[in-house]
Amino acid sequence: MLQSRWSQANSLLCVGLDPDLTRLPAHLAGRDDAIYEFCRQIVDATHDLACAFKPQIAYFSSLRAEDQLEALIAYIKTRYPDLPVILDAKRGDIGSTAEHYAREAYERYGAHAVTLSPYMGHDSVTPYLQYPDKGAIILCRTSNPGGSDLQALPVRSTPLYLHVARLVAEQWNSNGQCGLVVGATYPQELAEVRAVVGDLPLLVPGIGAQGGDIEASVRAGRTASGQGMMINSSRAILYAGKGEDFALEARRVALETRDAINLSR
Amino acid sequence: MLQSRWSQANSLLCVGLDPDLTRLPAHLAGRDDAIYEFCRQIVDATHDLACAFKPQIAYFSSLRAEDQLEALIAYIKTRYPDLPVILDAKRGDIGSTAEHYAREAYERYGAHAVTLSPYMGHDSVTPYLQYPDKGAIILCRTSNPGGSDLQALPVRSTPLYLHVARLVAEQWNSNGQCGLVVGATYPQELAEVRAVVGDLPLLVPGIGAQGGDIEASVRAGRTASGQGMMINSSRAILYAGKGEDFALEARRVALETRDAINLSR
Repeated sequence: MLQSRWSQANSLLCVGLDPDLTRLPAHLAGRDDAIYEFCRQIVDATHDLACAFKPQIAYFSSLRAEDQLEALIAYIKTRYPDLPVILDAKRGDIGSTAEHYAREAYERYGAHAVTLSPYMGHDSVTPYLQYPDKGAIILCRTSNPGGSDLQALPVRSTPLYLHVARLVAEQWNSNGQCGLVVGATYPQELAEVRAVVGDLPLLVPGIGAQGGDIEASVRAGRTASGQGMMINSSRAILYAGKGEDFALEARRVALETRDAINLSR
Repeated sequence: MLQSRWSQANSLLCVGLDPDLTRLPAHLAGRDDAIYEFCRQIVDATHDLACAFKPQIAYFSSLRAEDQLEALIAYIKTRYPDLPVILDAKRGDIGSTAEHYAREAYERYGAHAVTLSPYMGHDSVTPYLQYPDKGAIILCRTSNPGGSDLQALPVRSTPLYLHVARLVAEQWNSNGQCGLVVGATYPQELAEVRAVVGDLPLLVPGIGAQGGDIEASVRAGRTASGQGMMINSSRAILYAGKGEDFALEARRVALETRDAINLSR
C-alpha cells in the first residue's frame, strides 16, 4: 500500500496529526468536535500531497477524545482509501498485553500501522505481526535530545540503535511488515541505518519544528529508487496559520515541504 | 504514600487489574460495565492485602472502555485513599507528546504513578516529573522472554538494564519521584539492580502466571528494612475463580501471595 502510494502521489511527506487544543484556530476552538474538525480540514487540504497520515494518540487521549480519533481515521479511510494511516502510539508491553494494544490500534481504530517501542523485545512485537496486512514501525534512532541516552550506547562497539535496526530487518521483518523510526536530526545515523536495513520503510520525524535538515535526511535515508521514507512534519504544517484559512496555510507549507523533499531525492 | 502504605498494610503485594473480557465470570460478562464491576469487586476483596493497585490500560482501551477505567480509579481513590494507583501504560515519546500522556495519566485518570519506557531518554520522562506529587516507574529489566533482546546487551561490559538503573537512580530521580520495573523472572539481575539503586522502589512483575519465584525475588529485591518492592500479581489473582465467588477466590490467592512474600522478607 505504501509502495503504491509513494509512486502514485510522488510524495514522501507524512502529515502528522497532533491536534493541540491550545493552538487551534479560534473559530474552531469552541466546538465539541474541535480536534476532529481541525484534523479533517488538514486532511482534506493536504491529502494529495501526502504519502501517509500519522495521528498521535496522546493528543486525543489527554482530552478524552478517543471518539474523535476513531471518527478521523474512519474519515480518512473512507475518503482517501489509498492513504495509509499510521497510529503513533509507541506501545511496548508483554505479549498478553500487546494483544490488547494491537486490537486497539488495528481493530478499534482501524489504523494500517502502529509505532512501537523495541525495549521489551520480540514477544512485545509479535502480537502485532499476527495481523498479516498491518504494519509495525519500531523506534530505532529517535529525533529528540534524550534519544542518545540509550540509543547511542555502545554495544560491542556499535550503537544500540544499529542493533535494533538489524534485529528488525533480519528477524522481526520476516513477513515484510516492519518499518523503523529514525529521526531527521541525525542524518549520518540515518545513513548508517539505511546501510544495514535494505529497502525497509523509514518513518523520519524531526524536520520542521524539531529542526532536522530535509536535504541531508533525504540523501541519507532514500532507497536506490528514491523512495523508502515517510518524512513526517506535524506542527510546522498544522499550525502554519491561525485564522479561518489555516487549512490553506497548512497546504502551502505541506506543498513546500513535499517539493523540498522531492528536490533532494 | 507508598512508604506509609508498605508499613501500614504490611504488604508488598501489588494487585494488577488486567480485565480480559473472555475470562470474566459468566454472571458479569453480559453487563455494560462488566470490566469495571469485575475490577471493583477484586479491589474490594483485596484492598487490605495490597500495597498498590495497577490497572493495565490496554485492557480498557482495546474495549473502548476508558470511562470504566476512569470510574475504577476514582472508586479506588475515594474508597481507599491510602492505596496508590499505578497506571500501567508504558508510555514513551518526545517531550511535547509526553506532556499529553502525562496529562492523560495524572489528570484525566488521576493515577498516582505511571509506567514509562526509557528508550527515548531524559526528555521523554521529564514532563511526568513536572508533577511533583506523582510517580514515574521506568522499565529496566522486564519479566518477558524478549526482555533480553535489548536489555541484556552489553554496554561497556555491563548490561543495558544496569545503565538504565543507574541513569534513573542517579539522574532522573533527583526529586525522589522514580521507580523501576524489574521482573521477578531474573532474581540475580534484581539483586544487581538493587545494589546500584539504593532504596528506589521496584515494581516487580513476573510472579504468578509468568512463573517467577517469590522467595528468590524478595531476597534479591528487598531493601534493608524489608520493603522497597511492589510485587505484582495480576492473572493468578484475577482469575483464581470463575464463578460468582470469584472475588473470594481472588482474596484467597492474594492472601497466600502476600503471606508467601512476607515469609521471605
